[in-house]
Amino acid sequence: MQDRCGIDSYVRSIPDFPEPGIIFRDVTSIIQSPEGLKKSIDGLVESLKGLDFNVVVGPESRGFIFGVPVAYALGKGFVPVRKKGKLPCETLEKEYALEYGTAVIEIHKDAIRPGDKVVVVDDLIATGGTIEAITEMIEELGGEVVRLQFVMELAGLNGRERLHQYDLDSLLIYDGK
Amino acid sequence: MQDRCGIDSYVRSIPDFPEPGIIFRDVTSIIQSPEGLKKSIDGLVESLKGLDFNVVVGPESRGFIFGVPVAYALGKGFVPVRKKGKLPCETLEKEYALEYGTAVIEIHKDAIRPGDKVVVVDDLIATGGTIEAITEMIEELGGEVVRLQFVMELAGLNGRERLHQYDLDSLLIYDGK
Repeated sequence: MQDRCGIDSYVRSIPDFPEPGIIFRDVTSIIQSPEGLKKSIDGLVESLKGLDFNVVVGPESRGFIFGVPVAYALGKGFVPVRKKGKLPCETLEKEYALEYGTAVIEIHKDAIRPGDKVVVVDDLIATGGTIEAITEMIEELGGEVVRLQFVMELAGLNGRERLHQYDLDSLLIYDGK
Repeated sequence: MQDRCGIDSYVRSIPDFPEPGIIFRDVTSIIQSPEGLKKSIDGLVESLKGLDFNVVVGPESRGFIFGVPVAYALGKGFVPVRKKGKLPCETLEKEYALEYGTAVIEIHKDAIRPGDKVVVVDDLIATGGTIEAITEMIEELGGEVVRLQFVMELAGLNGRERLHQYDLDSLLIYDGK
């Protein structure tokens, strides 16, 4: 395990949720602590400070938890990626594979402009399927993905290899799944 | 209209979404602007500064957008209210009425302790049904609701009257529905 911001002690690990064999890493225990929330947001801000970008993109809904405070602290805009049917204006849709079946996410077409330099923020990188779909949407709209930034990483699920063409950083890396 | 933080110019109003007759007030246009995001969060922080409280509660998922940056900026913890089945530990559930049918939301039982002073933050107050359910959950767990804080309010839907026993504040108030 690598834990450069001292966040691990705030993470509650729940075996067999949401299904048998999965260890769920709970972020709600990080953020309900004023210290855990401060350490995690400060860690993300520190990691992104000095990087040349203008937009933060985060997926519903745990990406909102970490992405918006980071955008606010660094004076950037925040663009949400949501589940299908929730964004009110014209969207770009992307279907992607889950373990069983598929999911569809959307982004407002006018929220990313050609030349935008984009940081994607989420709570956790596992297999990287959702994040890969998000990078494809950003690039279809003409944006450039300059960083994939996570609070936690499950290194055993190889999301980093799948997204190897990107600059990827996680504050807290677990070796397993 | 009352707009004490200059946010209205960032709000995109979409007629007939998600259904005919509704004017949808879109927050994504506020937050994708660095200035809109800063004005709205600064406005919430200014409104809550000096209030005696220790926890921010926000409902999934637009309550996360505004609640977490406020908790971070003021050094408080953030507790999410989520749709049923998404929180991994023991929860308190609450079913409440929608226009058609019902919805169920949950909060972690151990996230609110007796004596906690709680501010509820959300993007918008309309009829107040979800917020009323949230206040009931907080109080069942022994917390005290010291403020209901919104970015926008649709005054024509009478949420303020429904929740008259609480201190309620909105940065931007629309007269209609």
